[in-house]
Amino acid sequence: MTLLIRNGRIVTATDDYVADVLCEGETIAAIGRNLTAPGGTEVIDATGKLVMPGFIDPHVHIYLPFMGTYAKDDYGTASRAALVGGTTTLIEMCCPSRSEDPLEAFELWKSKAEGLSACDFTFHMGVTRFDDDTPPKLRQIVEAGVASFKVFLAYQGFFGVDDTELYKTLRLAKELGVIVTAHCENETLVAQLQQKLLAEGKTGPEWHEPSRPQEVEAEGVHHLMTFAELTGAHVYIVHTSCDGAVQAALDARRRGVHVAIETVIPYLVLDGTYAQQPDFEGAKYVMSPPIRSADQQPLLWNHLASRDIATVATDHAPFDFQQQKEMGRDNFTLIPNGIPTIEHRATLLYTHGVATGRISLNTFVDSVSTQAAKLFGLFPRKGTIAVGSDADLVIYDPDYRGTISAATHQMATDYSAFEGWEQIGRPEWVTVRGEVAVRDGAFVGELGSGQFLKREPTHF
Amino acid sequence: MTLLIRNGRIVTATDDYVADVLCEGETIAAIGRNLTAPGGTEVIDATGKLVMPGFIDPHVHIYLPFMGTYAKDDYGTASRAALVGGTTTLIEMCCPSRSEDPLEAFELWKSKAEGLSACDFTFHMGVTRFDDDTPPKLRQIVEAGVASFKVFLAYQGFFGVDDTELYKTLRLAKELGVIVTAHCENETLVAQLQQKLLAEGKTGPEWHEPSRPQEVEAEGVHHLMTFAELTGAHVYIVHTSCDGAVQAALDARRRGVHVAIETVIPYLVLDGTYAQQPDFEGAKYVMSPPIRSADQQPLLWNHLASRDIATVATDHAPFDFQQQKEMGRDNFTLIPNGIPTIEHRATLLYTHGVATGRISLNTFVDSVSTQAAKLFGLFPRKGTIAVGSDADLVIYDPDYRGTISAATHQMATDYSAFEGWEQIGRPEWVTVRGEVAVRDGAFVGELGSGQFLKREPTHF
Amino acid sequence: MTLLIRNGRIVTATDDYVADVLCEGETIAAIGRNLTAPGGTEVIDATGKLVMPGFIDPHVHIYLPFMGTYAKDDYGTASRAALVGGTTTLIEMCCPSRSEDPLEAFELWKSKAEGLSACDFTFHMGVTRFDDDTPPKLRQIVEAGVASFKVFLAYQGFFGVDDTELYKTLRLAKELGVIVTAHCENETLVAQLQQKLLAEGKTGPEWHEPSRPQEVEAEGVHHLMTFAELTGAHVYIVHTSCDGAVQAALDARRRGVHVAIETVIPYLVLDGTYAQQPDFEGAKYVMSPPIRSADQQPLLWNHLASRDIATVATDHAPFDFQQQKEMGRDNFTLIPNGIPTIEHRATLLYTHGVATGRISLNTFVDSVSTQAAKLFGLFPRKGTIAVGSDADLVIYDPDYRGTISAATHQMATDYSAFEGWEQIGRPEWVTVRGEVAVRDGAFVGELGSGQFLKREPTHF
Amino acid sequence: MTLLIRNGRIVTATDDYVADVLCEGETIAAIGRNLTAPGGTEVIDATGKLVMPGFIDPHVHIYLPFMGTYAKDDYGTASRAALVGGTTTLIEMCCPSRSEDPLEAFELWKSKAEGLSACDFTFHMGVTRFDDDTPPKLRQIVEAGVASFKVFLAYQGFFGVDDTELYKTLRLAKELGVIVTAHCENETLVAQLQQKLLAEGKTGPEWHEPSRPQEVEAEGVHHLMTFAELTGAHVYIVHTSCDGAVQAALDARRRGVHVAIETVIPYLVLDGTYAQQPDFEGAKYVMSPPIRSADQQPLLWNHLASRDIATVATDHAPFDFQQQKEMGRDNFTLIPNGIPTIEHRATLLYTHGVATGRISLNTFVDSVSTQAAKLFGLFPRKGTIAVGSDADLVIYDPDYRGTISAATHQMATDYSAFEGWEQIGRPEWVTVRGEVAVRDGAFVGELGSGQFLKREPTHF
Ligand SMILES: [Zn+2]
Ligand SMILES: [Zn+2]
Ligand SMILES: [Zn+2]
Ligand SMILES: [Zn+2]
Ligand SMILES: [Zn+2]
Ligand SMILES: [Zn+2]
Ligand SMILES: [Zn+2]
Ligand SMILES: [Zn+2]
Repeated sequence: MTLLIRNGRIVTATDDYVADVLCEGETIAAIGRNLTAPGGTEVIDATGKLVMPGFIDPHVHIYLPFMGTYAKDDYGTASRAALVGGTTTLIEMCCPSRSEDPLEAFELWKSKAEGLSACDFTFHMGVTRFDDDTPPKLRQIVEAGVASFKVFLAYQGFFGVDDTELYKTLRLAKELGVIVTAHCENETLVAQLQQKLLAEGKTGPEWHEPSRPQEVEAEGVHHLMTFAELTGAHVYIVHTSCDGAVQAALDARRRGVHVAIETVIPYLVLDGTYAQQPDFEGAKYVMSPPIRSADQQPLLWNHLASRDIATVATDHAPFDFQQQKEMGRDNFTLIPNGIPTIEHRATLLYTHGVATGRISLNTFVDSVSTQAAKLFGLFPRKGTIAVGSDADLVIYDPDYRGTISAATHQMATDYSAFEGWEQIGRPEWVTVRGEVAVRDGAFVGELGSGQFLKREPTHF
Repeated sequence: MTLLIRNGRIVTATDDYVADVLCEGETIAAIGRNLTAPGGTEVIDATGKLVMPGFIDPHVHIYLPFMGTYAKDDYGTASRAALVGGTTTLIEMCCPSRSEDPLEAFELWKSKAEGLSACDFTFHMGVTRFDDDTPPKLRQIVEAGVASFKVFLAYQGFFGVDDTELYKTLRLAKELGVIVTAHCENETLVAQLQQKLLAEGKTGPEWHEPSRPQEVEAEGVHHLMTFAELTGAHVYIVHTSCDGAVQAALDARRRGVHVAIETVIPYLVLDGTYAQQPDFEGAKYVMSPPIRSADQQPLLWNHLASRDIATVATDHAPFDFQQQKEMGRDNFTLIPNGIPTIEHRATLLYTHGVATGRISLNTFVDSVSTQAAKLFGLFPRKGTIAVGSDADLVIYDPDYRGTISAATHQMATDYSAFEGWEQIGRPEWVTVRGEVAVRDGAFVGELGSGQFLKREPTHF
Repeated sequence: MTLLIRNGRIVTATDDYVADVLCEGETIAAIGRNLTAPGGTEVIDATGKLVMPGFIDPHVHIYLPFMGTYAKDDYGTASRAALVGGTTTLIEMCCPSRSEDPLEAFELWKSKAEGLSACDFTFHMGVTRFDDDTPPKLRQIVEAGVASFKVFLAYQGFFGVDDTELYKTLRLAKELGVIVTAHCENETLVAQLQQKLLAEGKTGPEWHEPSRPQEVEAEGVHHLMTFAELTGAHVYIVHTSCDGAVQAALDARRRGVHVAIETVIPYLVLDGTYAQQPDFEGAKYVMSPPIRSADQQPLLWNHLASRDIATVATDHAPFDFQQQKEMGRDNFTLIPNGIPTIEHRATLLYTHGVATGRISLNTFVDSVSTQAAKLFGLFPRKGTIAVGSDADLVIYDPDYRGTISAATHQMATDYSAFEGWEQIGRPEWVTVRGEVAVRDGAFVGELGSGQFLKREPTHF
Repeated sequence: MTLLIRNGRIVTATDDYVADVLCEGETIAAIGRNLTAPGGTEVIDATGKLVMPGFIDPHVHIYLPFMGTYAKDDYGTASRAALVGGTTTLIEMCCPSRSEDPLEAFELWKSKAEGLSACDFTFHMGVTRFDDDTPPKLRQIVEAGVASFKVFLAYQGFFGVDDTELYKTLRLAKELGVIVTAHCENETLVAQLQQKLLAEGKTGPEWHEPSRPQEVEAEGVHHLMTFAELTGAHVYIVHTSCDGAVQAALDARRRGVHVAIETVIPYLVLDGTYAQQPDFEGAKYVMSPPIRSADQQPLLWNHLASRDIATVATDHAPFDFQQQKEMGRDNFTLIPNGIPTIEHRATLLYTHGVATGRISLNTFVDSVSTQAAKLFGLFPRKGTIAVGSDADLVIYDPDYRGTISAATHQMATDYSAFEGWEQIGRPEWVTVRGEVAVRDGAFVGELGSGQFLKREPTHF
């Protein structure tokens, strides 16, 4: 199929200009003024619209067994929602428990996406156990096209690794050129503080944040930095929620540690008061690390604008308020963690970042698309608008105004954390490898058309 | 004229792909695979070569009256040298003394370039005095297309401004959306330390660094940061030489100060021992701030790789070793400050940065071209390879090997600070607005073809 | 005269034990259990009381011509008030204007105390101008027994010195072994921000703090630290009000800068809301640096408890609310700066520091007495309870409860900044060189009995 | 027995004056000028001498089973050596292995001292395991008079505790008012780096430092700080070797964490080159954390002078060079860790600190005596010269000159790490509770006369 996007304002992580984009088959064939197209070419008039590379969400959970239940979305609902929000590529956390075989887990997770996803997809391979059998299996998974690992410094005994496992994972990653993404919270402190709070009768969702205070996260980052420094491994800190954690990473970077920093959209637009709402309403806002006090927000925006924070992801982990979040009504430690955000990440960032002047359009594209592509071996196939790249394009209408609501969203959850919030702009058309998946803001794609993206290690 | 560059590896601050670039007239018309070109098009085969946006040197001195003498280059020799090194745009410091009229100075400086320069050019307008007459004149200069100022916290009484002048300059800049570049050293400390050292009989070039130690620079930056924070002005620290100075800026950035950081190529590749060479040889390496101890180098490279340091400039200020540097043989404070580097900035950065793996190719382009264009209102006309941008292109042959020498360089000075150093790669062809200025590494351009670049303020 | 203090709990900066103290003439003759005393000895039973070295206030203003008026206290009222509050030694700022002769100023200031003060006293010699005539005069003053200077980085043109004067003052101080106390605020920023706020119609006392924000003070400290580092002079930062300023000093101390830090009692117990009170009530709380937001308080207490902050002084500068503070009713920059605190410094620190558990008794004594003695060449004559030291003693009754009020205070001002505040404990007896000056909490001393304390330089 | 020390210069952590000290029985009875003494009083003329409180070494190992061998000293040799060096009180680490019962261990360790030690002594109770049985036993030990614990973040599986044990130990300590001393190195990193180095054939003592680099220690401190912050426990970091570790503690102190910092004498006077000496000579200098590069020394001295570092201890752990250190000739990880320093701690600190002007005499006394007494519940019985305090006195002759040598030292080891070094001054007389234990620099005390010091918790 041939597609010609006429006269859009093309915005990449660096560039900003007006031109036509010609897509032939799955890729971008030419960029120029007044390009001519063969007959049968679909022509989209993008005058007055922003043409951006398809967004990449580098941190989502879709297949997520949890406490006897499952996260609500499958790849059908999740990829629809993602695409409507401009996200054309998903990187899911493949998180086996310590007792699962990594290879089987990888196949299981992949099977949930293949044939169902309308987005392209890949995985961070969770290393939740590291013994003598682990290295050959991880090598095999890397050869199969997975160029990133995930470790948890939290959730000891379940997903979490101990220090020796952490060291060995990083050393292997360094050898293989694989980047290691990491959830940085000291799990012991969390476990002890949870116990202490519950013992004091502090059971509501408002106690979730005090059970994992900023120091616990900063310590997790400091801990990881030391391990990264001494192994030389390249690391990526997921869902950084506070300045203390960012600073711990930046201090290390100054010494030469190869570290990239992710934040997620809830930390930028929500503050701690949301989880303090009465009638268990706060449970909708329970995720880990927790949403912090409002004074952290401007610091995170500053770090984002300065590009210290590389990516804005979601940590999408969708649970219903009814039935699921309610499991923790009497005990905040039993509230399934997560805020459904796969759909509104980019529009929230545009609304609260670009439209307010906090970040530039280039920074917007860099943080929702390009950096993820670069860090995770998808570039230049994804993450930019350049000749030869996949024709994953978002044609964004900055003049659109809408309202976020669970009544209209594509995600499977029964609530939206942003119910009634105004949205500025929206993806009008979205293409995946040259095929139109969203038209006039509505999903028109084909479930199952998404591909598994094989990636080469790049972090030597 | 029409130019088709076939099959090069196109590298911008973000992108990296293989394609053809078609230039029509002065600008880039299209980018694609297997582009067809009209008859009469010059075709350059760039297979195996890097195609990069023309480099921008945001900090040079060409017309520089100093202590009764003048810097050696004029725009003829300087722009030839710049182009052979891939630099297609120069931003010169227009530095009137306190007694000169700013408007006259601006016209004088411009007249030195017009009709002689083979590069495009513009100026940072030096604000070396700020009284009641100053604002209307600066407004006029900004309207004439100059969107950046320069202030000196050093050189009090000559170029330097006092705190009140600094505040007023920043406030005006904030109002006009103009960025203020600043030389940050506390001049009093320098003057007093110079006096003290000379009184102790310490007169050789090796005493230049101790007369302006790192603390003096860090204090200058800290000082400026406070003024920037309280005025809201956007600032740019020129020639940052040490980690302490960078940290002072980064601390402020975290609090929301809009600050960009420049370093210059000598700090990245030379260390303090060069100025300590016997027989007055050290004088070749006297510049301000001084070249620091070797332990600062890896920290500067780290800051460059992390993009904390935005730009690599030169502070090109060319004086002969004979006659000129010799003026300070008995008194290091009389040595004309400066190292001739306009020609080798990018090749030195490629050789010691890209070829050693310290920085990526994208970072190379970003720091020698794109960031300068963005910060100083030249983007997207300059600093990228995109449809509609000026066809300023560097076709870099990474396989070339050469040796730097005063015997062969284009600059007017009688010495090279890098005599006998190996060079990896070179600009094979260079174009300025579609015209070939360098062919097979040799200058083939036309003196006087360079244009004054009018710039709009962008720092509101 | 001979005095025997029986059975008190003796508390010094280090010690804490029960014993008798025998004073013969002006000094302490012996410390022991069950000491015997010659006939005619006055015996004070201090059972259950704290016996502490007389307090020293290292930062007061008494003779203070200001804007055509004068601060309210003279040495009569001031020294009575000081003694009732346990302060037996005053160090006054001798602050000539730039046009006054230092020697004459020194004699003038001294003449105001001699024959009137009931406390012992000395001066920090204000260096408010430094030209070629200055050094011999300062040497003469140092020889006369003044071992400390005072400089202002603020109040340029009035008290303030420029950078060259600052450098020369520090260099001379280093040579003479004299410590330099410094008021650290960047005066230009203050002047410009004042102008800006007034121009915006912001004239009330609540705008005093925004006219000299924390950054202005932190920059002042950073600035001084660099000068101290490069001259080797020992410095003392007066009235530090915020964590940023303290940190700038601690960073320098780590590099070897000899710096001591003072805070004053208002910063520890008041917060910014006091200056925001309506009906011009806020004017009572206008001093410089300003009282900061409440979040600074715990940080200052932490720094005090850790002994990073050496001394708690007052910056006593007493102006009436009526007539005097009112001069600035329409323009906060005309409000005479200062809060009358010479009387309640120690009791406020005891009440809010010791009684709340924030600081230990030893830290209390160290910060209200010993450190000042050590830093300013009064030790061991003053600042401790040791054989041979002056018999300046405070016998503090921790069980006393009272209320602070202008109706009952000894100071000359018509208001108290702490009206109605509870006071825990009070000095029951106070002696100055063996003479009882306060008995049962009431002044019984003799005006004019105080001595000028000659001091030797100790900061080489 | 009655003892009168005439006319000495009495130096405490705060004071410095000339007086007589009268000791009756075990304590100080009076301090004064020209004191009269009953018949039979021994009179020591201390004119020209320093009279200081007996030194306290808060970190020694005496009974130390290690790898099938034992540290060389017993309480006989160790306490003789300590006393000759002015140390009158020892605090030994009681370090049971994880399998030992704490109560039995405590009795065992105590039995090694009782009846043999000539110094007074007490213990830090090592918590090397924390399970449900632990709390009652620790409570019993605290009731028996032990008010401090010791934990190891290093040596996992042997002495080391895991994070949960650490948390519980700190929480119990907080409840009991007990301070927790901690060895802060991340053991996993050490173990992994050791393995890596050995695998690379790096087996000599020069590889000991690279196996536990500064980052490993800084991370240990950062880790502990977070646990201390969230439990509120008071902590004491033993043997801090580098600025990074100190800074991690100071950052936490600023936030309100109650942390005290110890360094040990080797870090102040030795540098990394000692462990790099050929012929296995370096093994004499192997201890953990390792002795660092020379650039750390001035920073440690600065921190000591500013009182950020509270105490200078030894970590005395004496092993012979022959036979014992040699166990690690082919594998540096098998070299018994420790440098024998119990004898020369104070004289080395005097020689390299006081005599060079780096620290004052008061700081000397504070760091070798007073702070240890205060932190560990021995004050005011020990650590000062005050009425009622134990008559533990050091009469130091500052004019003595000597040379350190294994040939003449009192310790049992066959080598001195300071062989041939000059010593400035020495303890001429030393008393323990009023009994003369050293006379003319020679031990004249009685083995077995030392007492176990019962201590009350003070850290609530
Ligand atoms: Zn996640
Ligand atoms: Zn400059
Ligand atoms: Zn320059
Ligand atoms: Zn400054
Ligand atoms: Zn004052
Ligand atoms: Zn240890
Ligand atoms: Zn840690
Ligand atoms: Zn130890």
